[in-house]
Amino acid sequence: MAKAGKKKSAGKKTSAARKKASSRGSTNKPKNAFYAQSGGVTAVINASACGVIETARKHKSKIGKVYAGRNGIIGALTEDLIDTSKESTKAIAALRHTPAGAFGSCRYKLKSLEENRAEYERLIEVFEAHDIGYFFYNGGGDSADTCLKVSQLSETMGYPIQAIHVPKTVDNDLPVTDNCPGFGSVAKYIAVSIREAGFDVASMATTSTKVFVMEVMGRHAGWIAAAGGLAAEKAGDAPQIILFPELTFEREKFLKRVDQVVKKHGFCAIVVSEGIRNPDGKFVADAGTKDAFGHTQLGGVAPVIAQMIKDELGYKYHWAVADYLQRSARHIASKVDVEQAYAVGKAAVQFALQGHNAVMPAIERKAHKPYRWGVGMADLNKVANVEKKMPRGFVTKDGFAITEKCRRYLQPLVKGEDYPPYKEGLPQYVELKNVAAKKKLRRFDVKV
Amino acid sequence: MAKAGKKKSAGKKTSAARKKASSRGSTNKPKNAFYAQSGGVTAVINASACGVIETARKHKSKIGKVYAGRNGIIGALTEDLIDTSKESTKAIAALRHTPAGAFGSCRYKLKSLEENRAEYERLIEVFEAHDIGYFFYNGGGDSADTCLKVSQLSETMGYPIQAIHVPKTVDNDLPVTDNCPGFGSVAKYIAVSIREAGFDVASMATTSTKVFVMEVMGRHAGWIAAAGGLAAEKAGDAPQIILFPELTFEREKFLKRVDQVVKKHGFCAIVVSEGIRNPDGKFVADAGTKDAFGHTQLGGVAPVIAQMIKDELGYKYHWAVADYLQRSARHIASKVDVEQAYAVGKAAVQFALQGHNAVMPAIERKAHKPYRWGVGMADLNKVANVEKKMPRGFVTKDGFAITEKCRRYLQPLVKGEDYPPYKEGLPQYVELKNVAAKKKLRRFDVKV
Repeated sequence: MAKAGKKKSAGKKTSAARKKASSRGSTNKPKNAFYAQSGGVTAVINASACGVIETARKHKSKIGKVYAGRNGIIGALTEDLIDTSKESTKAIAALRHTPAGAFGSCRYKLKSLEENRAEYERLIEVFEAHDIGYFFYNGGGDSADTCLKVSQLSETMGYPIQAIHVPKTVDNDLPVTDNCPGFGSVAKYIAVSIREAGFDVASMATTSTKVFVMEVMGRHAGWIAAAGGLAAEKAGDAPQIILFPELTFEREKFLKRVDQVVKKHGFCAIVVSEGIRNPDGKFVADAGTKDAFGHTQLGGVAPVIAQMIKDELGYKYHWAVADYLQRSARHIASKVDVEQAYAVGKAAVQFALQGHNAVMPAIERKAHKPYRWGVGMADLNKVANVEKKMPRGFVTKDGFAITEKCRRYLQPLVKGEDYPPYKEGLPQYVELKNVAAKKKLRRFDVKV
Repeated sequence: MAKAGKKKSAGKKTSAARKKASSRGSTNKPKNAFYAQSGGVTAVINASACGVIETARKHKSKIGKVYAGRNGIIGALTEDLIDTSKESTKAIAALRHTPAGAFGSCRYKLKSLEENRAEYERLIEVFEAHDIGYFFYNGGGDSADTCLKVSQLSETMGYPIQAIHVPKTVDNDLPVTDNCPGFGSVAKYIAVSIREAGFDVASMATTSTKVFVMEVMGRHAGWIAAAGGLAAEKAGDAPQIILFPELTFEREKFLKRVDQVVKKHGFCAIVVSEGIRNPDGKFVADAGTKDAFGHTQLGGVAPVIAQMIKDELGYKYHWAVADYLQRSARHIASKVDVEQAYAVGKAAVQFALQGHNAVMPAIERKAHKPYRWGVGMADLNKVANVEKKMPRGFVTKDGFAITEKCRRYLQPLVKGEDYPPYKEGLPQYVELKNVAAKKKLRRFDVKV
């Protein structure tokens, strides 16, 4: 009866009634936690999940169950909660070496309280029904915004909750933190891949392929493209050219450089960010290419660049688009990245236990070489909706390479290998049981 | 004087004179060897080079220097010989973990003796000038043909030489040998990559990307595409669909299956061979796509397939084209592949020392599980110009997956990891000094 009553009245409770109900519930029983993954996944976001869950399990007197949202915040809204206590110690430990989002991620940003009050009411309803007092949200800039809004629920709606953001993004564009978990592994993948492909094209260049173009992620920020530059340790090494999204693509200047490089080194390996734009501001990838039916072809920028080189300079080319391969490549993850991803998950729980709200664990760099780092605390207000751009001083004057300053920043982030276990030649990634917690509330639909 | 005389007359020597000159030269001084890399390079062709050179170095009383052709057979024709004796033991050992062709490869097929006698005369001239009695050619089907032609020089032109082919091809299409060095590592890369990307798209599918398409090499044979199937160990695992070049692409049937898979499993991961064709025999990749200038766009098949799914089924997609990344990915090479690549290089030298000519070391499978293999000897006549197709029984009846028989064949080839050494987070691949041997002959131009 109490449950049924709750179902019906939850949406209409006053702040005062909620505080009372909440304090009534908070006897000795520890509050449960909610954890969810948000936005594009990475090779190490599950390592953060592992850090959160393992640390929470060590503090059972303070944190009850960890419920994971199935597909991020959507799981909270739809009351689709995964009871992680059903997973074995071994399965949770295996998250550390498993790429992508074990609980499902989502691309869904909460609107403001004014715009969609019903969603916030629903979140509180779900949190209350499952006695959730901790909210851990694992994502990038947009997710930090969602987390910040949730952190304000105590104030705005009178529901006591501590919301901690766990940083994750391959784009490396979160502010305050020195770098973002997820980026180091993409960086390593890109640097390793262009080095290997560079060796390949160098072998073939005399009689065949002279130009290799590799497209990488990063629509707005060139951090991932910059990482390709780590592969070039001396003159002539691949990649000889990097195209950054921060700089306008200058066709003639670029083609001239390609020609110079081929003439000097015999081949040219190019890393190009998916986000480069022509002087008119349009993406180079949308260079008017149409398919047989006249539809605009949603192609990559790599084939466009490659074809341009063929048309203008006549060089035989190959091109690659790594796409999801780059961000899911747990097999070549950076050890530093895995450790940091785990550490921010762990720190998030520790911050919660210390009573913090609206904060985010941030990586602090203590020394470049040998690299030393720690985890500090960032105010979520300073993180949400702020994009960290790559400094212009990280790109050489001519715009085609990274500077020593950039290299000094990037190098530590790709350090160390952290190989997953293999069986019969293939990496063994865990698939959780993902048992749903029993629903207690009415259905709530989310338009995705 | 003798040298000058040789220069002028070499092309005109009779068979008899050549035999005499040759026997005069063959006193106690061991003959030198020629080694070259041909065709598309692989993650492990240098492991074969390592096998050849290390083994030759152990038999200095029988084999003098190993000269490597700079850019394959072209190095022999242009007398651009690399003196591998200038390389340290350490550098040669490092070839074992270095991808691509350390001496440069080429796409160049010798014409028949009737069509281009001048080239054969030139080869003999170079071999004679550098006292070369052993010819090791490391390549695929076309290269086997070149090697066979060289092996016949004793008979056709009276120049005593032993030519041994060292098998290499990511396409896995050489006959007689159970598999080809180079293939196992691509296979591992593809299986690992589609497994990882499969985890990624599964995480995103509820609110975002539902379909992922990965294009792989193999214009004629589906061995590489088939390798993607290793990642799918149980129902619903990625990849749920494989498109093989041996089977005609049936658009409607394919789209129907994609829809079924998405509806059943929430997402669909597809491995597509670059070589799939429409019922009219045209490559699906050349589906009439034109760029802004009306040129046919040399795009990949992955974007075409992805766009088709979007247009017909409306699913959000991502696609990747691994291209050179797949065949140069030494960082995730198969241990079995590396061992076999080394073993065929070693065996080639041993066969030469035993007096063989016109043969090729072939991998022999002795048992599936646990996998046991050895190196046998194949008659080059049976190898050159014969393409091994994938048996129809390796593909399921519906044409979208591999059979258990195929899995049993493929599984051992991706077994084991053989990581290269890393420094500062990046693999350390060797670049040889590649010192040219002194030229003794007139210039000879090769049109490439």
